Amino acid sequence: MVSLPPSRRKRGEFSLLQITSLQNAKVKRAIALMNRKERDESALFLIEGFRELSRAVQGKVDIKELFFCPALFLGENELYLMESLQQRGTVLYQCSESVLRKISYRDRPDGLIAVAKQMELSFATLADDLAQLQKKQDLFLLIAESIEKPGNLGTVLRSADAVGVDAAIICDRCTDIFNPNVVRASVGTLFTQPVVEASSEEVLKFCKGHSIRIIAATPHAHREFTQENLRGPVAIVVGTEQLGLSERWLSSSEVQVKIPMKGCADSLNVATATTLMLYEILRQRNSY
Amino acid sequence: MVSLPPSRRKRGEFSLLQITSLQNAKVKRAIALMNRKERDESALFLIEGFRELSRAVQGKVDIKELFFCPALFLGENELYLMESLQQRGTVLYQCSESVLRKISYRDRPDGLIAVAKQMELSFATLADDLAQLQKKQDLFLLIAESIEKPGNLGTVLRSADAVGVDAAIICDRCTDIFNPNVVRASVGTLFTQPVVEASSEEVLKFCKGHSIRIIAATPHAHREFTQENLRGPVAIVVGTEQLGLSERWLSSSEVQVKIPMKGCADSLNVATATTLMLYEILRQRNSY
Repeated sequence: MVSLPPSRRKRGEFSLLQITSLQNAKVKRAIALMNRKERDESALFLIEGFRELSRAVQGKVDIKELFFCPALFLGENELYLMESLQQRGTVLYQCSESVLRKISYRDRPDGLIAVAKQMELSFATLADDLAQLQKKQDLFLLIAESIEKPGNLGTVLRSADAVGVDAAIICDRCTDIFNPNVVRASVGTLFTQPVVEASSEEVLKFCKGHSIRIIAATPHAHREFTQENLRGPVAIVVGTEQLGLSERWLSSSEVQVKIPMKGCADSLNVATATTLMLYEILRQRNSY
Repeated sequence: MVSLPPSRRKRGEFSLLQITSLQNAKVKRAIALMNRKERDESALFLIEGFRELSRAVQGKVDIKELFFCPALFLGENELYLMESLQQRGTVLYQCSESVLRKISYRDRPDGLIAVAKQMELSFATLADDLAQLQKKQDLFLLIAESIEKPGNLGTVLRSADAVGVDAAIICDRCTDIFNPNVVRASVGTLFTQPVVEASSEEVLKFCKGHSIRIIAATPHAHREFTQENLRGPVAIVVGTEQLGLSERWLSSSEVQVKIPMKGCADSLNVATATTLMLYEILRQRNSY
């Protein structure tokens, strides 16, 4: 039994449902969400971990169910998170360790896994906000085109959060953003920043219509990324791991820069290359 | 049967051994090398992929056996790589597609997987070279302490190659550098640059003895990484994913810098943070 703070136990705020069977239908449905087809059909997805769930709460994600196992908790604040979830309508299920490990997609689960409703990722609603924002200050967008590996996409989102982009836009999606490994690698930052999915066409139109310079990193550029003036309203655009940016984006970019490569390999990991570009914008903006 | 260029077929340089059984002892031994215990005991490891194997040849890695499947080849240069391997004493085994897929640790194998002898990673021999180098120019070292995830360690090595460090030093290793995912994420750059393993003690002694400034990234620093003068002989030191640098390295560092964090998360992925530090050294060196 979970050890609740006395005040809560008295007030009986947690009406706990217990799951000990690996065959439990809710457990099976949660595990099925590892699978993209199941996620697409149900419009649900998994959020695992204390940090990720805290950020999902912060980002007002609709969390339907929480599976928890106190024996696996690492910190002291899990009960407060659970309380805040229950107040927002999440149903809580206390699980045996074996059940929680079965649902978990981590080597070292921290005792918290939730099923949540997929967020609305439409570009249309965000575009109005961005257009307003653009009048006031320098817009800073990240556009990621067709990134394949969930870990890379999540890491890109983590870096986008770190530099404070106005929006992270996933064009022509390849990886499902609700893949558990995107959630994990982003450490939940996909819940706290504006992240949308869009077609390349609508994003290009938006950038052109609002005088946002599109900046592409390509080995064929003449100047290095630290030598080009990257100030003003900008969109950093990055492409797939294997092939880089599509011709469409390359030819639409106002500025092309290269990242110097001094070794034997001809490219960096896509998430590290993206992070270099994002922080270069930050450096230039802070060094007027 | 693999289609060899006519000249080679005539000269009969490839005496091909065929494997079609998943139960073949050599296949089983290769698969066992996914396991760290097997790698440690045999001092062998796996190298998969055309780029990775090409760089292993370039780096003079001792490649014992090559399993190949022409039906999976993606390019045209595989036969030249195979020829160069055979000339250096590698035994070649042609495999059925199912056998090769069984040995492969990738979703999309490109038809080439080798078993190789683990390289010598001792710091002692390299230290003399570095000491010589240090007299001539600004030394540039990367020191990675106890990185846990193979993908992160490989990505760090890929970035270290990209900026041309004089050596990448793995202190107090946690991840086995011969893990297949290190090889993959490094895209073989661990074969073409000086990579060694060492105790923190010997590396610290070396840095202190040769006036190499130790530069650590920590959120507690006062100045941002782009504002501090990082020129001269330097060692960038980075720590684990979860806990960052150990107290030992933090307190031994001459320079502490922070990476600005504008979002809700308080840290970056360790490989992206390392890459930012490495490229900042490069930027400052090029902007005298």
